[in-house]
Parts: sequence; C-alpha cells; structure tokens
Amino acid sequence: MEKYSFKDFSLHKSFDLGTVTLSEQDIIDYAKLNDPLEFHINKEAAFKSVFKGFVASGSQILNTFHTRSWVKMFGNTIICGLEINNWKFLKPVYANQPIKGKTIIVFFKPNEEKKHCVVTWRYEFTDEKGEFVQTLEITVLHRMD
Amino acid sequence: MEKYSFKDFSLHKSFDLGTVTLSEQDIIDYAKLNDPLEFHINKEAAFKSVFKGFVASGSQILNTFHTRSWVKMFGNTIICGLEINNWKFLKPVYANQPIKGKTIIVFFKPNEEKKHCVVTWRYEFTDEKGEFVQTLEITVLHRMD
Repeated sequence: MEKYSFKDFSLHKSFDLGTVTLSEQDIIDYAKLNDPLEFHINKEAAFKSVFKGFVASGSQILNTFHTRSWVKMFGNTIICGLEINNWKFLKPVYANQPIKGKTIIVFFKPNEEKKHCVVTWRYEFTDEKGEFVQTLEITVLHRMD
Repeated sequence: MEKYSFKDFSLHKSFDLGTVTLSEQDIIDYAKLNDPLEFHINKEAAFKSVFKGFVASGSQILNTFHTRSWVKMFGNTIICGLEINNWKFLKPVYANQPIKGKTIIVFFKPNEEKKHCVVTWRYEFTDEKGEFVQTLEITVLHRMD
C-alpha cells in the first residue's frame, strides 16, 4: 500500500482503494460491536428483513476501506477530521458481494502559513454493475510537512 | 432502557441518550479496530498531537450512544438507514470526559399505505460546559407496525 503526503494532493485527483468483500461472519462480527440490529446478526431475522439476506451495517464498508486502505495511504498526514456530509446508503451491501472503493479530492485548500490543508474526500463505493452502493464526503485537516 | 415504537415519534420530540465517558483504553481499543491512527492508539503520539492527549476517534461517540442507547430504544422499528448529513466534529472528545447525548426528530414523514415512516434524527453531543462537541443528522426508514 503506497503512502502519500500532501505533495500528492490536488483537486480532482482520485485514488483507488481496492475491493472489499465481506463474509456473513464479517457482517455479524462488525454489527455485534457497532450496530447490533437483529437483521445484521441473526440469520432468520436477516432473511425475514426487506433485504432477504445478510447485509452489512451502513458504516461497515467505509470502515473497512478506511482501516484497510485509507489510513495506510494517508494516515501519517492527518491532523483531525472536520465533518462528514452526504453519506447516502443507496443500495444494500450483501455478504460475499465485491465492492470497489475510490476516493476523489473534491475540495483542497492549503494554508502555507499554518502548514496545513483542508481536503474534502468524496468516497464512491460501487457494485459489480458499476452502480453506487454508497457515496459520501469527508473533510479532513492534513499536515503540510 | 425504554423501547419505543413509531407511535412515540413526532416532529421536534427529543430523547435523552444518557452520558458516555470513554477511558483511554476504550479509545485505544476502538481505534485499533476502526480508526488506527497513531495519535488514537499510542500515548506518545497522542501527547505530541494538536490535542495534547488521547481523544476519541470521530465516530466513537456516535457509535457508543448508538450501541448503548439508540439501538435498544428504537432498534426494533428500523427497516434501513438512508443517509447521514452535517456530521460536524466541533470539539475533540478527551478520555474521561463525560459527554451527554440527545436526539431530536427533525423530519417525520409517515406513509400509512406502505406502513413505514422516514425519520431524520438530529444528534447533539455536549460537553460539561453544555457546548456541542459533535452534531449530525441521520435519516432512517422505520416500520409502522
């Protein structure tokens, strides 16, 4: 996994985050800790839900790309998070469904004096058909050193 | 923890989510799984950061109120999440700092025919001074039965 610094940042630049496929067990384990709704952790409830099967908790796909890819690529440059907007849960993410992740810099404001820059990252998660399952924007304060 | 149904929902109604105080270990354990940035998991890095101490990962306060309170109060009524907006990280949340949580219904649209309702929950998390540390809005599809 390549590591990046602020020198690699520019408006509209996009970065590939790879592919994530969550197993039923991944979904259950994550939900037990973070989102213990019956239809995420119990097989009968999952199949009786509107989804007719196991689907990931809303935050799990972002969380998985964040820990597996984003933190390794950009983690050294982070001062703090500022906000999250327009996080849309467009399609469910099923167990064993490969999901591609991509992040694009949609706002970039360096402050040379304070040696930091504000970056808004738009995340796009897509399914096998290339359709969005989720999109969101995270604004982060990064170090410029 | 009281359980609620859609009959308890109405515009501008607010619900107390209690108080959460995260220990250093809570912050480290959560960050290792969900947000493994050095300043969340390593004491030296935490004290060298802009925060000069351990602060919780951005998502941990919501996550803790969600699992400890919200899911128990409203979990039985959920069909699925729809979106998250305006999640603002206004002040850091330090280890051992008591944070109060409150959620207010700011949008409420029942659909009698489809037996579901769209609800937007505004979360407000405040510190000892009564100042916001984070606010956000989550829109959820709930069952009306």
